[in-house]
Amino acid sequence: MFDGRVTEQFKTFESGIRLDSGRILAPITIAFETYGTLNRQGSNAILVEHAWTGDAHLAGKRSDSETKPGWWDAIVGPGRLLDTDRYFIICSNVIGSCFGSTGPTSINPKTGKRYNLSFPVVTIRDMVRAQTLLIDSLGIDKLVTVMGGSMGGMQALEWATQYPDRIASAIILAATPRPSPQAIALNAVARWSIFNDPTWRKGEYKANPKDGLALARGIGHITFLSDESMNSKFGRRFSAKDGQFDFFGQFEVERYLNYNGYSFVSRFDANSFLYLAKTLDLYDVAWGYDSMAEAFSAVEAPLQFYAFSSDWLYPPYQTESMVTCLQELDKDVEYHLITSSYGHDAFLLEHETFTPLIRDFLSRVQAGTAE
Amino acid sequence: MFDGRVTEQFKTFESGIRLDSGRILAPITIAFETYGTLNRQGSNAILVEHAWTGDAHLAGKRSDSETKPGWWDAIVGPGRLLDTDRYFIICSNVIGSCFGSTGPTSINPKTGKRYNLSFPVVTIRDMVRAQTLLIDSLGIDKLVTVMGGSMGGMQALEWATQYPDRIASAIILAATPRPSPQAIALNAVARWSIFNDPTWRKGEYKANPKDGLALARGIGHITFLSDESMNSKFGRRFSAKDGQFDFFGQFEVERYLNYNGYSFVSRFDANSFLYLAKTLDLYDVAWGYDSMAEAFSAVEAPLQFYAFSSDWLYPPYQTESMVTCLQELDKDVEYHLITSSYGHDAFLLEHETFTPLIRDFLSRVQAGTAE
Repeated sequence: MFDGRVTEQFKTFESGIRLDSGRILAPITIAFETYGTLNRQGSNAILVEHAWTGDAHLAGKRSDSETKPGWWDAIVGPGRLLDTDRYFIICSNVIGSCFGSTGPTSINPKTGKRYNLSFPVVTIRDMVRAQTLLIDSLGIDKLVTVMGGSMGGMQALEWATQYPDRIASAIILAATPRPSPQAIALNAVARWSIFNDPTWRKGEYKANPKDGLALARGIGHITFLSDESMNSKFGRRFSAKDGQFDFFGQFEVERYLNYNGYSFVSRFDANSFLYLAKTLDLYDVAWGYDSMAEAFSAVEAPLQFYAFSSDWLYPPYQTESMVTCLQELDKDVEYHLITSSYGHDAFLLEHETFTPLIRDFLSRVQAGTAE
Repeated sequence: MFDGRVTEQFKTFESGIRLDSGRILAPITIAFETYGTLNRQGSNAILVEHAWTGDAHLAGKRSDSETKPGWWDAIVGPGRLLDTDRYFIICSNVIGSCFGSTGPTSINPKTGKRYNLSFPVVTIRDMVRAQTLLIDSLGIDKLVTVMGGSMGGMQALEWATQYPDRIASAIILAATPRPSPQAIALNAVARWSIFNDPTWRKGEYKANPKDGLALARGIGHITFLSDESMNSKFGRRFSAKDGQFDFFGQFEVERYLNYNGYSFVSRFDANSFLYLAKTLDLYDVAWGYDSMAEAFSAVEAPLQFYAFSSDWLYPPYQTESMVTCLQELDKDVEYHLITSSYGHDAFLLEHETFTPLIRDFLSRVQAGTAE
C-alpha cells in the first residue's frame, strides 16, 4: 500500500554493463523508488522513465519537509492512473545523471576520484540496459508497461525494440526517433554555454559552474515552452529600474529564464547536464540497424504514442514518422495528437488531456485486446 | 551610372537628434553608400534598410581586394530589381551599429572615450529619425520606396507610420509589428552569453569578448534558419576524432554554429550587438499609440509585405496581423506569403522568389496604380 510516503532505494551491480561504446561501466548503482506492492507472480509492475533533468522521485514525499511531491505525483497513487492499489510502480534514475545512479559525479573506483569527463558517453540503450539489471533483481520478468515522456519516451522505445519480450506495452510521449539538427543545435549552444564558463575547467570544478549552467538551462527552457505559452505567460512585459530605456532592463520572459536558470544550478550537476545532452542528441532508434523499419520489426508489445501540437523540440511529425512505420509493419500501434499550447512540457503539465486515453489503453493491454 | 564600384561616404550632423528616450544624441555620423544618380527633381531615390548585423555596403565592391560584393548585390545594378540606371539607391548604416554610424564604439565627445555602455538605448524610430537627416541633406523630399527585411522591415514600417508623406511606397520583408516573447527569449540568452564572458567587463573591453559573442551569434543563427533547412544542410552528420562516443565530438550543425560564431567576432562589436538586440526586442510599431490601428491610420503610401513560410523568428502570422489591420483601415496593402524552407534568412537567400513581385509593385507605384 502506498500512503504518500516513499523511500529512495539503491542497488549496486558490481559487474556493471558493457556500453554501446564498447567500454565497461562497473560497478553500476541505480537509485530508484517504488510505489505499491509487487504481486507474487511479479506481473503487476510498471516502469516510469524520467526525462533529461528528472530523477527517481516520481511521486509522494520522502519526508515531511518536502514542499512538493515527486515530479509526476498527479498520476501515481491509489485510484490514480498508475493505481498503487493495483500496480507496483518503479522509477529509476538513469545512469549519467546526478541523482544517485552512476554518473560523472560518481567516484571512479580506478582513481578514487569523481569521474567527471572520464565518464563514458552513454546512450539511451545503455540506460535501459542498466535498468534491466534492476528489473531482474526485483524478480520481474515482464513489465505491464513502460512509460515516459521526452528522454523517458526514448527509453520506452528502447524497451520496445531491444527487450520486446519483457514488456506487455509501452507508452511514449513527446519523444522522437532521433532529434533533428535544430534540436541538436539548441543543445549545442547550451553545451557551449558551459564550455565558455571559466569555472567549468573541463569538468574539474569544485563548485558547479553557475553562470554557464544557468544559461544552458535558460536555453533549454525556451525549447520546453512554446511561442503561444510564452505569450500567455509573459507577453512582452518589461521591468527595469530605469524605464524602458534601461540597458539592463529585462523583459519578464528574460527574468524568468534567468531565475529558472540560476535555481537549476543548485540541483543539477553541469557535467551530468553535458553528458545527458549528448545522450539525447546521439539518440537514434535505428542506431545499428539499416532502417527504422528494421529496428521496429522486433516490436511485439502494443505501443501507444502521444505528440503535442505546440511541441517544436520534438514536433509531432517526428512521432508520426514512427507511427507510420509501425503501421506499415502491421504492429499494434495507437497514436494521439494532443492539442496543447504548452509546447514540449505539455506531457508534464497537461496530464488530464491524455490520462483517460492511457487508462483505456492499459485496460485493453491487461484484457489482451489492445488494438 | 553604377559600374560595380562604390565608395563609402559619411555625413555628420552636429545637432544630432532627440531620441525616444528623451536623451539627445549628438553629433550623429551616418555611414552610407549610394548607387546610380539622383535626378534633378530628386524623385528617383530608393532607401534600402539593413538588418541587425548588416551595414551600408549593399552592393558592388569598395575595392578589388573584396572577395564578395555587398550583402544584397543580387538585386542592385543596371537592369536588376533596383535598377541603377533608373534609381538612385541609398543604404545607410543604422545608429547603434559599428559600421561607421554613431554607436557604442564611437567616441563620446563629452568624455573623449568610447561610449560603450554610456551609449543610449535607441529605438527603430530613432534609427529612422537619424536617416531623415541624411535624406534631407541629399535633397530628397520623397522616396520612391523604402525597403528592408527583418530589422530593415521594421525601419520601413517606421517610415510608413512616422513619415507618411516622405515615401511613395514601402516594401517590408520578414518583419514583425513586435517580436514575440519567444523571439525576445532567444535574444535574451544571446545577451546573457556576452554578459557571462568575463572579458566583456560591462562593456569596457579592449578586445571583443570572443567566446561570449561567438556563442551569442551561434544562438542567433539558429533563429535565422529553420528545422527544414538545417535538415537538408547538415542532417545529423557527426564528426569526432574519437568516433561517436567522443565527449567533444561535434555534430556538423554544431561545428557550423561554432565556426560561424567565431568568424563573427572579427567583424561585429559585442556592445553594438547588445544594443541592437535590445532595439529589436523593444520594437513595437504601436509604441506610443493606443493600438496598431491607430499607428497605421497615418499610413498614406501603398505597402507591400512579405512573410516566409518557415520563418519561426518572425512567423507569418505576425506579418498577417499587420496586413489585416491595414486592410480593415482600407489602406493600400499587398501581401505575399512565400513558401520557403530557408527560415528567416529566406529574404536574403531566395530573392528570386519575390523579385518579380516587387518589380510589379514598383511599376504600379510609379504609374500611380498600386492596388
